[in-house]
Amino acid sequence: MKIASRNGSRRRSAPDGAEPGRSDTYDFLLTVTAKLLTEKDSVDFSLSEIALRSGMSAALVQYHFGSKDGLLMALLERGTAKAADQLVALEKMPVSVSERLRIHVKGLVSAYMHAPYINRLLHHIMSSGDEARAIRTSELFITPIANFYARLIDQGVEEGVFRPIAPMHLYFMLVGACDQLVARRSALQHAFGVRELTEEMGQNFCDTLYHIISTGLAAEK
Amino acid sequence: MKIASRNGSRRRSAPDGAEPGRSDTYDFLLTVTAKLLTEKDSVDFSLSEIALRSGMSAALVQYHFGSKDGLLMALLERGTAKAADQLVALEKMPVSVSERLRIHVKGLVSAYMHAPYINRLLHHIMSSGDEARAIRTSELFITPIANFYARLIDQGVEEGVFRPIAPMHLYFMLVGACDQLVARRSALQHAFGVRELTEEMGQNFCDTLYHIISTGLAAEK
Repeated sequence: MKIASRNGSRRRSAPDGAEPGRSDTYDFLLTVTAKLLTEKDSVDFSLSEIALRSGMSAALVQYHFGSKDGLLMALLERGTAKAADQLVALEKMPVSVSERLRIHVKGLVSAYMHAPYINRLLHHIMSSGDEARAIRTSELFITPIANFYARLIDQGVEEGVFRPIAPMHLYFMLVGACDQLVARRSALQHAFGVRELTEEMGQNFCDTLYHIISTGLAAEK
Repeated sequence: MKIASRNGSRRRSAPDGAEPGRSDTYDFLLTVTAKLLTEKDSVDFSLSEIALRSGMSAALVQYHFGSKDGLLMALLERGTAKAADQLVALEKMPVSVSERLRIHVKGLVSAYMHAPYINRLLHHIMSSGDEARAIRTSELFITPIANFYARLIDQGVEEGVFRPIAPMHLYFMLVGACDQLVARRSALQHAFGVRELTEEMGQNFCDTLYHIISTGLAAEK
């Protein structure tokens, strides 16, 4: 029951002893929720809306997640678990520190493009007043990136490739840029004449972001 | 009645023919709202909360702003009017394009430090379903910055100082970074051991951000 204990929801054990946290239904409900969040660009929805969209009963949704906050936390955990695994894999790759940064920027832009609700979700959970959940969210989402940046900068400085900057500053710049890319899609149309955020636009932004950050990070020669 | 017509609230004319939009009470109520938003890090409040905090009657608050959305729009308008004036003044300053960027970055970081609720406010207004208000918000907040960036990059490219990048990309990076700096203050403590965002931290971040962006923007030599 790894996921159940991790998200801390009030879920009961499955009557048949199976692991509901890993069931297809559980995953399907998270996918339905992710789609709804992307469409609405807001966390204003009810469990009954998820039930309606998924064709499942509200009782089943509640059985799996306990509450709406339990559902949101489970969605965040699913996303961050995948992202954290990718960071670990990236650190093991036998590539230069610059190439590691490039791959990370690409992955980060892509993650935000495919889950534009991340920021909304983080804010909702972290300002819900549930301190334990806020700390857990920080540990799940922010700390792995923060540690990755700290090691990346250390290595780059050691190799004479990067100049030293605070990992927190790199976090603000990279996560902030990706977040802004997807945060106010409706505003893009008015201010920049962009009707829809396409994969190509994401790729172009990724190239600019990597160029600016890597050039700005470069050690003076 | 300039402000009244701009924010589109359902405010009635003051009985004595004065301009309530420019009264001390009006400004005071906006200041109380800004403080509440900063403390709560959320737009979840009621007009009665503003009345209670300000010591004014709920009827008076409603008289001035019509509704909570009217109050939030008025707050955004006050902030953006000031920011837009500063951008206009900055464009007239006889400084180099790099120095203009530096002054802007400093102003942007400072604006977010002093009104950390900006992003929350923008999101609330732009996702409220009121299309006219969303367009107005975009025109007030995003378009002036977008146009400023377009001219800044054009001038820098013309002078051989900057390489050409999309103004929208500069917007994502600069506004995104400032927004992230103030967006999840509670998370900073867990992930970076930062208890409070001080002016000095803002200044340090400002220096890093300017260095990274200006170096990254620099034309290849």
